[in-house]
Amino acid sequence: MSYFDNFMKANQAYVDLHGTAHLPLKPKTKAAIVTCMDSRLHVAQALGLALGDAHILRNAGGRVTEDMIRSLVISQQQMGTREIVVLHHTDCGAQTFKNEDFQAHLESTFGVNVSSQDFLPFTDVEESVREDMELLRQSPLIPEDVVISGAVYDVDTGHMTEVR
Amino acid sequence: MSYFDNFMKANQAYVDLHGTAHLPLKPKTKAAIVTCMDSRLHVAQALGLALGDAHILRNAGGRVTEDMIRSLVISQQQMGTREIVVLHHTDCGAQTFKNEDFQAHLESTFGVNVSSQDFLPFTDVEESVREDMELLRQSPLIPEDVVISGAVYDVDTGHMTEVR
Repeated sequence: MSYFDNFMKANQAYVDLHGTAHLPLKPKTKAAIVTCMDSRLHVAQALGLALGDAHILRNAGGRVTEDMIRSLVISQQQMGTREIVVLHHTDCGAQTFKNEDFQAHLESTFGVNVSSQDFLPFTDVEESVREDMELLRQSPLIPEDVVISGAVYDVDTGHMTEVR
Repeated sequence: MSYFDNFMKANQAYVDLHGTAHLPLKPKTKAAIVTCMDSRLHVAQALGLALGDAHILRNAGGRVTEDMIRSLVISQQQMGTREIVVLHHTDCGAQTFKNEDFQAHLESTFGVNVSSQDFLPFTDVEESVREDMELLRQSPLIPEDVVISGAVYDVDTGHMTEVR
């Protein structure tokens, strides 16, 4: 059972509406949104983004990892973004486990030692936004004049609340 | 100049349409889409995804990094996904630089030594999809029965072409 063919079919319908137009590589708002992979958050719709408006970066939790910094540095240095929004959300998968339990589960499932890996779970979603904003502020690869904001998205209502 | 307030205002309008509804944490299609942060790719629309359908993971290039594996493992083990689509695209920012030049640029801009870091640029977009599909197949943390597909998205037409 695979949904790939279904996605390809839906894409055919999308192409019919899309038409042909070349938008610039550099995002119009100069903003990058750092958020979670969660299926109930459709970022472009929730933030009113048109095609070409902003970079959208997503991993488990919307956490600021080394790979997130790599991506943001490319976003800023190669494509001119100057603003970052850290957007976490309610009822997150990163709140469903603790590192030790998850590491033990993976070890017993795959026979691989992952005891040194942090899977970046969190309990308090406002606190996780603040932590990740702070990691961005402290990064030596992100200029000090980059505007950094934070918010929590409610997956039940679609509502964003600013976190300071 | 910041767009954050603009995003928050657009979100207010989104909330009015959203209504209140609780969708399950586990994605309905059991699929995770691994793709690029590019501003011209709106994943949900392009693949016909409804809210709650699929995890969407995005970094610079849509590359399979350690953080991407972390996220996919959480997606699969905690939220039951069993399929991965690697989706790269034409005219990618990851095609605009070479590691050595980018490392030198960052060193001269920030005074930080990043000579050991791979920023994961690529030249051939079909080849980068194949490389990343192979990294997923080789990962000891991803079960062998997970379905892995690949495609290239054309940012000018919205059209996806399968990569085998």
